[in-house]
Amino acid sequence: MDFEVPESLKKPLVVPQKTLMGAGPTNCSERVLNAMKNPILGHLHPECLKIMDDIKEGIQYLFQTKNKATMCISGSGHAGMEAALVNLLEDGDVALFGTTGFWGNRAADMAQRTGADVRYVQAKFGHSLTLEEIKEAFEGHQPVIFFLAQGDSATGILQNNLGEIGEICRKHNCIFVVDTVASLGGAEFRMDEWKIDVAYTGSQKVLSGPPGITPISFNERALTHIKNRSTKVKSYYFDVTLVGKYWGCFGPTRIYHHTICSTLLYGLREAIAVVCEKGLQSVIQRHMECSFRLQKGIEVLGLEMFVPEPSQRTATINTIKVPSGVDWKKVSEYAMKK
Amino acid sequence: MDFEVPESLKKPLVVPQKTLMGAGPTNCSERVLNAMKNPILGHLHPECLKIMDDIKEGIQYLFQTKNKATMCISGSGHAGMEAALVNLLEDGDVALFGTTGFWGNRAADMAQRTGADVRYVQAKFGHSLTLEEIKEAFEGHQPVIFFLAQGDSATGILQNNLGEIGEICRKHNCIFVVDTVASLGGAEFRMDEWKIDVAYTGSQKVLSGPPGITPISFNERALTHIKNRSTKVKSYYFDVTLVGKYWGCFGPTRIYHHTICSTLLYGLREAIAVVCEKGLQSVIQRHMECSFRLQKGIEVLGLEMFVPEPSQRTATINTIKVPSGVDWKKVSEYAMKK
Repeated sequence: MDFEVPESLKKPLVVPQKTLMGAGPTNCSERVLNAMKNPILGHLHPECLKIMDDIKEGIQYLFQTKNKATMCISGSGHAGMEAALVNLLEDGDVALFGTTGFWGNRAADMAQRTGADVRYVQAKFGHSLTLEEIKEAFEGHQPVIFFLAQGDSATGILQNNLGEIGEICRKHNCIFVVDTVASLGGAEFRMDEWKIDVAYTGSQKVLSGPPGITPISFNERALTHIKNRSTKVKSYYFDVTLVGKYWGCFGPTRIYHHTICSTLLYGLREAIAVVCEKGLQSVIQRHMECSFRLQKGIEVLGLEMFVPEPSQRTATINTIKVPSGVDWKKVSEYAMKK
Repeated sequence: MDFEVPESLKKPLVVPQKTLMGAGPTNCSERVLNAMKNPILGHLHPECLKIMDDIKEGIQYLFQTKNKATMCISGSGHAGMEAALVNLLEDGDVALFGTTGFWGNRAADMAQRTGADVRYVQAKFGHSLTLEEIKEAFEGHQPVIFFLAQGDSATGILQNNLGEIGEICRKHNCIFVVDTVASLGGAEFRMDEWKIDVAYTGSQKVLSGPPGITPISFNERALTHIKNRSTKVKSYYFDVTLVGKYWGCFGPTRIYHHTICSTLLYGLREAIAVVCEKGLQSVIQRHMECSFRLQKGIEVLGLEMFVPEPSQRTATINTIKVPSGVDWKKVSEYAMKK
């Protein structure tokens, strides 16, 4: 051997206990952490497939959907975002991105890489998008898909009119994609009722599961759109027709698509089970109440929320204006240490 | 809520203890499993970045490389394969795939999806590729990249002449990509010495780590090739220039590329540390000795190995010919149960 054993790996693993107060990951419960030390299962063992089935039903409940094409992408929330876009888009397709912070732009970058013709509709600073702004953008761009984050973790803006936007998308024969990574479980979300065609969420945010496995769901309309593609999906790993066949979404026969991480399945299953035990409605309520109390306290301190309109604030990410004259970096460093 | 809590999630998680004898995943040690119940760390916490640094040094040792662009893809081995290809290939690039079983074809599918002009050089049934076959294919196709699996898990064929193939690739100004998912730790592998430009491996095979996080390494030649692309890499998630900036491969500044799964980092770090403790050479030796004894036993039983030439057999996957008149499916079902 020319290269020797690195010194760093002769030392023990050190993992401090931290209270995670950022947009995610959040702290996992003992139940979730303990689940993850279970022995590894093979990716096609019946016991592994059973856990995947449990998770699928759990996601259907969380998204409030009957979609059979409900599964997980084996990757982070970013992987879920890319999976949504790369399946729906072909070269030259016009894709419209609503931006209320950071995530519309990130999604647009992915769409552009896969060959789409990217357009934007930008919300006013500190505000969510109005129906008028969206309608106008639809008239101008005639998009094939419309992407929106329900909650944008960079600004704490909540898009609270998804149901009405779903109607606009149907009227314009447009596929509606909603990112719920930072919002699901902290705000109401009704995929079927609101006519949302594709949605995904983060495992490591409100759900308090491990990162690295991303729930995603496609309705029949989205599946038909994908079926009618004239070119192959540009990614094998993210091809939801194949991933869905592994997750048993299209019938009893399962294919080997990739080696799923059973450890993450254990963690996610237990995290979803905890939400189920509490009930989705009560989890949302608790997040909203906590956020409301925090907002009150912030006002008492003489500080101001970044989002002026209370109904447009995410309960999960509470953004506070940095008063003029204050160095935000120092505040952030102090908060990280304390 | 229109959709009610699923009954399945009211029941406890059931994970049986199994002895995993397939191509992977393999059983994790108690040390690895216990590491994975550690609390979650944020994706940019210094303690998390430190574990990533440890893993990076560990992979450099396992691959026997000095490559600074050594990191992990947050996904399964398939994700590593796709990351290698999507970074290297642009529309119309001629990509040559050596096939000794299943994996050359899977990789070719990915390359085709990303727009490459795919060609094949197929080994004789039950054999690895000869240098003559490869040279001839290079003359005919003039490929931009050449892909080969060191060990093919579908056939148990080991490609034992990678050093010589590396020379051929250099002579033809071709990027050499090697899949070591099923072989690393069970056969010698010398990335730098053998002039291999890109390599990746599985966490859940010989390393006995969790699946879902895939070590990958690019040398300077591969990075220059990527830098000289005329189009953006078609995937954001797999863009190794960005992933590498997160892994600290190109300087001290880290970017937020995606939320890495700290749980999988803990498991992989400990799995690599175990290999380091034993020493790579002795791990390889043990696998070869076990395989040799198994092969002897199989001969004693009057059975025959699928690969006739002993030096072309992987020590990690031992493939046995099904005698004529025997139903392989019944054998496989019996083995799964026992």
